[in-house]
Formats: sequence, structure tokens, C-alpha cells
Amino acid sequence: MSAIGPEIERLIQLLAKLPGLGPRSARRAALDLLKKREVLMEPLALALTDAARAIKTCEICGNLDTASPCALCCDPRREGRVLCVVEDVADLWALERAGVFKGRYHVLGGALSALDGITPERLNVGSLIDRAKQGVEEIILAMNATVEGQTTAHYLLDALAETGVKVTRLAHGVPVGGELDYLDEGTLSAAFKARRSL
Amino acid sequence: MSAIGPEIERLIQLLAKLPGLGPRSARRAALDLLKKREVLMEPLALALTDAARAIKTCEICGNLDTASPCALCCDPRREGRVLCVVEDVADLWALERAGVFKGRYHVLGGALSALDGITPERLNVGSLIDRAKQGVEEIILAMNATVEGQTTAHYLLDALAETGVKVTRLAHGVPVGGELDYLDEGTLSAAFKARRSL
Ligand SMILES: [Zn+2]
Ligand SMILES: [Zn+2]
Repeated sequence: MSAIGPEIERLIQLLAKLPGLGPRSARRAALDLLKKREVLMEPLALALTDAARAIKTCEICGNLDTASPCALCCDPRREGRVLCVVEDVADLWALERAGVFKGRYHVLGGALSALDGITPERLNVGSLIDRAKQGVEEIILAMNATVEGQTTAHYLLDALAETGVKVTRLAHGVPVGGELDYLDEGTLSAAFKARRSL
Repeated sequence: MSAIGPEIERLIQLLAKLPGLGPRSARRAALDLLKKREVLMEPLALALTDAARAIKTCEICGNLDTASPCALCCDPRREGRVLCVVEDVADLWALERAGVFKGRYHVLGGALSALDGITPERLNVGSLIDRAKQGVEEIILAMNATVEGQTTAHYLLDALAETGVKVTRLAHGVPVGGELDYLDEGTLSAAFKARRSL
């Protein structure tokens, strides 16, 4: 592709690595950025640099924020005795958008998967058990309703047994095979309200 | 969305402006970037900054390159007496990927559209007529096979009449309603070979 110089080529290659952008849409995006240098390209470069510098992983819950512990962990209005365990920060964002949960979170960083070699050691399980032992009264397992998510929930139920903390999971309402991040507020709210003891 | 700080919020908003990324996929992309800071986020910020600084619009043909005139305009191996007129740099890239044209290009910067208020004055038409008068023997109109593209081709045919230069258009092979950037090399090659005089 001699017509595309190395600078644009490199930009296209990196854009194509973003989820949702294939090679063709990456080319379109690169071209669009080059046409909107001042209103889009330079601001995006700056936003990326700023976020890369500023954003930390919360040492307590695994959330992403400018501070560690994060704003959610530091918020005194949130109920510290109830933990909601999610696979990913995207799920935390989805629950916060729905505004259905006012306790604290624990981000596992994924779900167990034999296929992808995701073992319990690669997830934030140890820190969850440590937190469970520190005055927590309920742990809500808000895994995705996928095979991996449900496998993870069962694993966590066993792992948390020693702590004696009540463990619940989201109610039916999360569609089978569905991912939290896709759900509307009503569904998320119903699933929270009807959560059951495991 | 109190859980998402202003830095991430800004990043999501800018990513959502890229063609092909909606609000949800922009959130996914932002999260993916934050997880891959060193291998994706910082390199992308750098690639954007580099490209924004380095890339110019070619003063002759409208192509994007680190130099103006661009590498295609300066390449002595390319046939300077044949011009291929395209709507957009993406179309130039598509033709270069296919490797079916060895002349020079002229990028209009869009197509005529009454609906979008794209008049001839907003396209690089004047510079095309100037170039046509400087030893050009054939002008290939490689517009998209859309209403706007064909309207533009007809307009250019009239506008170029005064120059006496032979004007051709791409042959059937470009599907009706289709855009060049979507086509495979075979189709583009066939369309080039069977181009007809207008
Ligand atoms: Zn936190
Ligand atoms: Zn040029």
C-alpha cells in the first residue's frame, strides 16, 4: 500500500485493534480523524494521554479512577457491608448507570475460562475473600449469565463458604447468555430486587 | 454516571465520534485502551499526534501524505497524462490497494449533494480544470455509483468539455449503489479495463 505512508499506516493498525473496528472501519476512522484534526484528532490524542496518565486501578475494588482507592470505595454514603462482585469495569459502569446498587463493588477482572486459561489465580479472588472477612454481610455475585460467568459464580460460592458471609446472585431477569453491559435499567433493577440466596 | 470520571468520560465521548463506534462500543474501546495502556493506549496517542503533525493535504491532487506534493504526484514512474478523479482519499487508497491504476489522481473532497449543501465550489473542481489544461490526455471519472457520485460525474463531464480532454468513466462492474472502498481488486480491475468514453 505505497499510497499510505507509515504514519497513517501505523494509525490504521492501532485503530484496527480497538474492539468494534475492523481494518476497513479503521481506515475510515483514520481518514475521518485526519479531516477533523483540530476538533477530533488532537483532542483524542490529548484525551488518551491524559487518561493513560491519570487513571489508576483501585487497589481495593479494581475499579478504574483517577484515585486509588476509587471514589466509590471512598464514598461514605455507600453501604460498605454489601459487596457486588462483577467480572469487568464495564459491568460496574452498567450498574452505576442503572443506579440500582448503593453498596461497594469488587471487580474480578474476568471470568473463569478453561479455554482461555483464566484460572482463579488470574482473577481478583484472594482480595475478595480478604474483604469478605472484614465486616461484610452480603456478597452479591453479578456475573454475566454465560457459562463462564456461572462457572465463576459457583467457584466463588465455594471459595466464600469459609467466610460465612451470605452470598446472593442476581435474579432471573438477566437473559440467559446475556451480558450485563447490554441490559436496560429496568431489567437490571428487577434482577437486583429479586436476587436470591445461594 | 458518577462512576466514570471526567477523563474517561471525555475519552468515551471522543471515541464515540469515530465512524463505526457508537456510545456502547466507545465505552468498550475506552476500557480496552485503559487495560492496554502500554501496548495500545500510549502508542495510539503518539500515532495520532504524529499523524496530525506530519500529514498534509497534497496541493496538487488532494491526497494525504507527509509531503506536498505527495509521493504519488512526485513519482516519475506514474503516467502524468492520465488523471483518475475520486471523491475521497479512501477511494484513492482502495484503487492503490487494487494496484489497477498507474496514472495520477485528483481528489474532489466529496460529491455534489443538494441535500448536504455540497456545491461545486466546495469541491476541488477548479484545480481539476486547471490540471486538465496542462497536457492531460484522459480523465477517468471514478465516482461512487451513487446518485451523488453520478450527478458529480455528469457535472464534471460538462465542466471539462471546454478543455477538450477525453473523459471516461469506470465500466460496469461497480455495483449500482456501491462504494469503491468496498470493492475487491477483481471488480475494480474489471471496471478499469472496461472503462468507456463519455
Ligand atoms: Zn474502589
Ligand atoms: Zn498529490
